[in-house]
This record gives sequence, C-alpha cells and structure tokens, in this order.
Amino acid sequence: MERRITESFDKQSLMRTLGAQLDSVAAGQVVISAPILEGTRQQHGFAHAALTFALGDSAAGYSALSVMPEGYEVLTAEIKINLLAPGKGDRLRATGRVLKAGRRLVVVAADVYAIDEGREVLIAVLQGTMIPMAPA
Amino acid sequence: MERRITESFDKQSLMRTLGAQLDSVAAGQVVISAPILEGTRQQHGFAHAALTFALGDSAAGYSALSVMPEGYEVLTAEIKINLLAPGKGDRLRATGRVLKAGRRLVVVAADVYAIDEGREVLIAVLQGTMIPMAPA
Amino acid sequence: MERRITESFDKQSLMRTLGAQLDSVAAGQVVISAPILEGTRQQHGFAHAALTFALGDSAAGYSALSVMPEGYEVLTAEIKINLLAPGKGDRLRATGRVLKAGRRLVVVAADVYAIDEGREVLIAVLQGTMIPMAPA
Amino acid sequence: MERRITESFDKQSLMRTLGAQLDSVAAGQVVISAPILEGTRQQHGFAHAALTFALGDSAAGYSALSVMPEGYEVLTAEIKINLLAPGKGDRLRATGRVLKAGRRLVVVAADVYAIDEGREVLIAVLQGTMIPMAPA
Repeated sequence: MERRITESFDKQSLMRTLGAQLDSVAAGQVVISAPILEGTRQQHGFAHAALTFALGDSAAGYSALSVMPEGYEVLTAEIKINLLAPGKGDRLRATGRVLKAGRRLVVVAADVYAIDEGREVLIAVLQGTMIPMAPA
Repeated sequence: MERRITESFDKQSLMRTLGAQLDSVAAGQVVISAPILEGTRQQHGFAHAALTFALGDSAAGYSALSVMPEGYEVLTAEIKINLLAPGKGDRLRATGRVLKAGRRLVVVAADVYAIDEGREVLIAVLQGTMIPMAPA
Repeated sequence: MERRITESFDKQSLMRTLGAQLDSVAAGQVVISAPILEGTRQQHGFAHAALTFALGDSAAGYSALSVMPEGYEVLTAEIKINLLAPGKGDRLRATGRVLKAGRRLVVVAADVYAIDEGREVLIAVLQGTMIPMAPA
Repeated sequence: MERRITESFDKQSLMRTLGAQLDSVAAGQVVISAPILEGTRQQHGFAHAALTFALGDSAAGYSALSVMPEGYEVLTAEIKINLLAPGKGDRLRATGRVLKAGRRLVVVAADVYAIDEGREVLIAVLQGTMIPMAPA
C-alpha cells in the first residue's frame, strides 16, 4: 500500500515543483510536507493558500487511497478549506485522514500546520469527498 | 484599481511558478489563466487540482479586491471547490466574481474552464468568503 | 418526472412541518418556497438558517432528481451554504439547479431569496453534491 | 455564559418546533440533541438532512458564542455539511466545538450522531465560520 501511494505521488509533477515529500503513510492517515520555497509564496512572502491547499488535498486524497483495494485510484470530488492563520515559517506539513470510507465515496479531512523555527501553528483545516475509481 | 490588482498579482511568486497571467480586471469580475505546464500536473498528466484551485481562488480573491477601496487587501477565509471534469488540454482559465460585498466579508464564486484545442469545458466551480483588510 | 418529484416531496414530513411547497419543476431546475412561520425562526424573529438550508438543499436535490431516470432517488452527499443576509420578510424561495450531471455524482447549486412585502433579497447560495441511487 | 446561551436558544422557535434541547455548554464546546419526530423526517422515515444541519449548525454556533465576551452574538457566515450515513434511530445529538477563535471570525466544527436503541452512529460532520457581532 505504501508502494502504491509512493508511485502515484512520484508521478505528480506538481508535487516535485512544490518540493513536497511523503512523510508517512498508514492505513487511513497520510502526512505530506513541503518547504515554503521562493516560488510558492503570496504577495507578503508567506506560503500561498494554493500551496496549503495542495498539501492538504493530497494528504487527504492519499489517506483515502490507503484504505482502497489494490488497483484503485481516488479523485477529489470536492473539498473545502478554512484558512486559520498565515503560512509563516520554513515549512508546511499536512496530515490527511479518513472520516468514513464508503463503497462509493470516502469522506476525508486534513489539518495543515506551518512550522516556524520549530514552533507549529495550525493554519488550515480541510473537509472533503474522494471518489474511489475501480481498476479499468 | 487594475493597477493595484496587477501589482499584487505580480508579487505572488506562486503565480509566476504556475505561469499564470491576469487576463482581465473589471469591477467585481477578474479572469486569470495559465498553461498546463509540465510541472503542474497530476499522476495522469492532467492539470493538478491544486492548479485549478490556485487559479479559481485567485480570480475570486481579486474580484473581491476589485470592489474594495484603495489600500485594502483581501484574504481568503474559506473556499470550497467542486471538481466536475479532468483538467485536460492546454490551458486553464478561471473567472472570479463577487456575489455579495459586505463591510466585513465578501462572498465570491469562480468557474474554471479547461481549454483543449479551442474547446472549453467547465472543470470546477468554487464558492468562498474573502475578508477585507483595511490599510494599517 | 414532475409526478415522481411531487410524490417524493409529499412524503417528507419536514416539508409539511415547514409549510414548504413545490412551486415549479423543470428538467434541471426546481423551485421550492415556504412562509416564515412563527415556529421556524431564530432568536431575532427572522427565518432560521436551518429553514434557509432546508429549502435550498431540497430544491438542489430535486433538481438533480429531475434529470435522473425513472426509479432513481438522490441523496445529499455534501452541501455548503454561504449566508448573505438575514431571512427577513414573509416568505423564502429557493431555486435549485444542476451544474453537472454525472453517472456517479450530480453537482448542484441553489439560490435562496427572502420576499419582504414584494421585494426580493438574495439571502443564501448553496453548492453541493448529490448521489444518484439506482432502483433496488 | 451558560445563561446567555440558554436564553438565546430558548428564543429560537425552530428549536422548539424540532424538539431540540441544550444538553451541555462548556467554553468552546456545546451539545444539542433532538428526537427524530414524526414531523422532521425525509421520504424514507429517517431524520431529514435539514434536522441534522439544524442541530450541527446550532451546536457549532453556540460553541463560538461560548468563547465570546458578554453581550456578543454570533451569526453563521457559512457552513458545510458532509452526510455520512442515514439519520436512523430515535434521536440525533450534535457536538459543536471551536477550532480557532479570531477577533473577526470563529472557525467551528460539529459532529452529529444518530442514536438507535443505544447504539451511536456518526452521521454528519460540519465545518464552518461564525461572525462575532459586538453589542450595539
């Protein structure tokens, strides 16, 4: 299962562009982090909301994939993000988790933290729906 | 107003990384587009959902800024995206618009289209809330 | 199709409790309205947000059902509401519409207006996902 | 603080219509429950999604009010509900909690359980934004 998720993650060119890495994979919980690069900022030099979204959505999606049978994929049907604080610091880290795994839909959540000189601040929460795609 | 929005947009390093451009700015409606670059894709080679989100959220946010007084900024408080179809093609284009401009909150929406050899397909709709920030 | 929707609507006891009625049914668009009753208010005497939600969600859900084949039902998977103004007046009216009808999911939206002595004010917008349920 | 919340709750006529009661109030967490009455059902006799929403939104809103100074009120700016399972049983119970209390916005969440002959099933999760309203 960890292998499948790593393979899928490595095929996402955006994850490379953002400098993101898979930190941990467990059944129903996946952690992804990324540095706040010179090229992923908003107008005040903080992490761009789209970086926060990218990590939270991906961590949530892979947490859904972690509970799917071999050969399945997942797509984001919808997801909502509430931004709580600026993405200030060196790095963002997102933890995605499965709230309810159904046959047709998987409901997921994610928390995103900014890490600023060792201090961690919750900067966003996401809640969404993933669709399992059976192998062709 | 167009100048203010262009200046803010140009300061967002993520927009450059994504190759995004401001296509048009009117009071209450802003259009942003970007090519689907080699480095902004998901595992099947389509536009990554975070690219779709980045354009939709930014177009929505700048539509809110377009109705604010000089010196104001806006922050995304929350936004939700429903993904309708894969981001297949050459380019994505997002149109953001203001649904209700209040003193404390601005409710916004955005539609994102994929452009595939001239054909346009609606791939995502967003609905969210922006917070006006008065000048310091 | 109108018969199916009317039958389903009439079986929802909450719709009777709220005094709600089906105003119109077309393929992909359904209108539902209700008076602001003495028993459906919040602490300031305006329409309760849950009444606004009930009408918007139902209009959106029936708009999805209106494009499904005979025998199908729909369930709300998720829906988000942005409240724009107080529900002040005599009556609320919700218009639901289909944004994208897929085989597995139907993405919908709804607008809710308050009607106050003939004047109409947009008080809420909803965006959500319905799941088609095939006949058993 | 408990008195303020009880007074506000008692003024909401919809809560009476739904048979809802305040089960507990603590700083940052409020529990509200209601029976699944004959008059608050959907077409299959389960709890209507709008009942689930009403309890979840109210529990979330009062959890925000519980951390506000005397004299404040809160309004729901926006809230999203993901429905996980049918509202089957005798009673629903919603627990609302504060995720982040800001000066301008309070981000909240709620879980709603159905209680069916003593067994509890998580049927919905909500995530939203409340606006503090200072005394006039």
